[in-house]
Amino acid sequence: METRLAARMQVLKASDIREILKITQNRDIISFAGGLPAPELFPTESLADLAAVLLRQKGTIALQYSPSEGYPPLREKIAKRMNKVWKTSLAPEDILITTGSQQGLDLTGKLFLDEGDAILCESPSYLGAIMSFNAFGPRWIEIPTDNDGMEMDAVERALEREARVKFIYTIPSFQNPSGRTWSMQRRRELVQLATRFNVPIIEDNPYGELCFDGETPGMMQAMDNEGLVISLGTFSKTFCPGLRIAWIAAKREIISKYVILKQGADLHSSTFDQMLTDAYLETHDLEQDLMNKRAVYKQRRDAMVRALEREMPPGVSFTRPRGGLFLWVEMPEEIDARELLQRCLDRGVAFVPGATFFPSNEKPNTMRLNYSNMPEERIEEGVRRLGAEIRSIMSETTRKASVRRSALPV
Amino acid sequence: METRLAARMQVLKASDIREILKITQNRDIISFAGGLPAPELFPTESLADLAAVLLRQKGTIALQYSPSEGYPPLREKIAKRMNKVWKTSLAPEDILITTGSQQGLDLTGKLFLDEGDAILCESPSYLGAIMSFNAFGPRWIEIPTDNDGMEMDAVERALEREARVKFIYTIPSFQNPSGRTWSMQRRRELVQLATRFNVPIIEDNPYGELCFDGETPGMMQAMDNEGLVISLGTFSKTFCPGLRIAWIAAKREIISKYVILKQGADLHSSTFDQMLTDAYLETHDLEQDLMNKRAVYKQRRDAMVRALEREMPPGVSFTRPRGGLFLWVEMPEEIDARELLQRCLDRGVAFVPGATFFPSNEKPNTMRLNYSNMPEERIEEGVRRLGAEIRSIMSETTRKASVRRSALPV
Repeated sequence: METRLAARMQVLKASDIREILKITQNRDIISFAGGLPAPELFPTESLADLAAVLLRQKGTIALQYSPSEGYPPLREKIAKRMNKVWKTSLAPEDILITTGSQQGLDLTGKLFLDEGDAILCESPSYLGAIMSFNAFGPRWIEIPTDNDGMEMDAVERALEREARVKFIYTIPSFQNPSGRTWSMQRRRELVQLATRFNVPIIEDNPYGELCFDGETPGMMQAMDNEGLVISLGTFSKTFCPGLRIAWIAAKREIISKYVILKQGADLHSSTFDQMLTDAYLETHDLEQDLMNKRAVYKQRRDAMVRALEREMPPGVSFTRPRGGLFLWVEMPEEIDARELLQRCLDRGVAFVPGATFFPSNEKPNTMRLNYSNMPEERIEEGVRRLGAEIRSIMSETTRKASVRRSALPV
Repeated sequence: METRLAARMQVLKASDIREILKITQNRDIISFAGGLPAPELFPTESLADLAAVLLRQKGTIALQYSPSEGYPPLREKIAKRMNKVWKTSLAPEDILITTGSQQGLDLTGKLFLDEGDAILCESPSYLGAIMSFNAFGPRWIEIPTDNDGMEMDAVERALEREARVKFIYTIPSFQNPSGRTWSMQRRRELVQLATRFNVPIIEDNPYGELCFDGETPGMMQAMDNEGLVISLGTFSKTFCPGLRIAWIAAKREIISKYVILKQGADLHSSTFDQMLTDAYLETHDLEQDLMNKRAVYKQRRDAMVRALEREMPPGVSFTRPRGGLFLWVEMPEEIDARELLQRCLDRGVAFVPGATFFPSNEKPNTMRLNYSNMPEERIEEGVRRLGAEIRSIMSETTRKASVRRSALPV
């Protein structure tokens, strides 16, 4: 049977992250690997009450098939909320409910990509997007990315050179994996470039509301007059991920195309989970929840940054994110994070080697650390072990190098 | 932006069924169009209690990310249940939880199909499968299908002729849309042919347990020693569809490939809905529920068959399904079911024109009728109106024909 598989199966492989998560799942490990929100912040009690009432009062609707576009009151709440927070001007018809933002990525690949089409992306970029889009055989054009976002000269040159760029994929706020946030200036410039070349921007925005320092950064979708920005939003980080409720926001002509693909992908997202999310938004203040989440995550980010400053040897640098769940570490070139991971797992610490986040040009000496899922003392302990292991590899390398040097005929 | 869309978007269109459902949703219409289970049979009270307990006791797990393969206890229950009902020999590792069986179809297309690959299917076949697979640009080979299943000579000739057949897609029990059920003999023959040519069989089995008359028909997966049968199962018809919990059963080497695609498609299905389904199966007897469902659907099937026998004019034939949700009507060739639908909608009756169920060779004079979603008196009234409209078109056609004849110069 294996000979009958599609050509794409030669390229696709299981997510490194999910494989690492499986290893760490049932062991007492300090895991910086996942992107898991803090479960102690989930509103389990409120949802228990809401779920019971919902099933008693509207169970025959909540357990039945429902429209592919999504539960109408939820689409309306999402549009309103986005307009309030991000100053977009979206109507309910501009929203499609998806089964996690991951589905938004999959449908986006399906909507735009023929084999050999080009995608512009940040370098590094989100692994889940790389996996989804790779199913459609694209060419990746990694745009050099600094602390303010993609370098615009490189974007412009790529758009001039390549006729078959189907979209520009970005995570402008608190990026996964780097923790970086685009400046407002860069966002405006990208929207201008996209308008000039008539190229869609995919604005993946799962972390935008998890801003700890300063103002929540604006969205490109609010700067766009041409309907070229398609944004992906999710409740996974602001509410909870287990219900898999997320959305695509775009002009309705494009949403109607997405709906066709949604029908073929899973008909519709869980009616019950959509209605439960809607009931929660109806009866609770998500702003209050977000304030709690931001406070907890800020403390954990601070704990991790402090520990890294203390424990990392010279030659190791890292980002200091203003929000989100991740930071990014760059180590001296002789350190391969995949080998480091093997050693760290033995010492009870996990992370994701950075190489997996580059669609083509891997940087093996990088890693992504998550700080949202562990209490501060565990973060400190984990970073301590991580630092010790890096130091140990560095000193081994130095020793080997000096042995090599002293072995040279003089 | 529309110029940037993938080539597949030229072919794909919104499902006729979902469009008809939208029209009928908010109107007082007797709808034979959907495939909706009877909502009054959903166990809303039990689920209300279970959902509240689940969120109170295991909320931090139920609302969190979870493995792509699915919730382990649920995978185990499904394997056990299949082995009991269908005499398969599946382990939990052979089960992947999907977001509805529709996702099983989408992932199957992705796993096997390169552009131009061939699929063998029944004629007619399931619209949702046609839509899913069409996203991957296949060629459809419709196999002539009689009341016992695909005609084996035609299958054999197609497999001899076509090297690039990636799989044979079948719904052997109470087929959607035709209501037909394959004989055991045909199933055995298909497994033999598939083994000889080393071609996978997709055995889509959403209705298998909804058998009203005689024994629940066996599955090809239980006749297969080579691991060539991949089956799709779902709780949508035996439990409820709103939670979108379904599964793929196949040998684990193939499941591991599906898992890679599942990660890219939506990471995992709703943790909460999986655990809720698991809790229901743990605490309730699905057999008892199924007996109720079978009894209700049998009465409705009987009501529809009786009404059709009474109301349909000569020249109209229809299937008498032993189970499932649908029956299939074939009308005289001069009747186009799409035109009939327009007229019937004005009279408050909806159905799905059959043409949509043929991937290439449409039969415009056919239609699919669903009987599971309406009480008996509504079924009778709907069929009465349907019959009146068909008679009226037939007499108009006869009149026109005689006018044409009498207008001929003699």
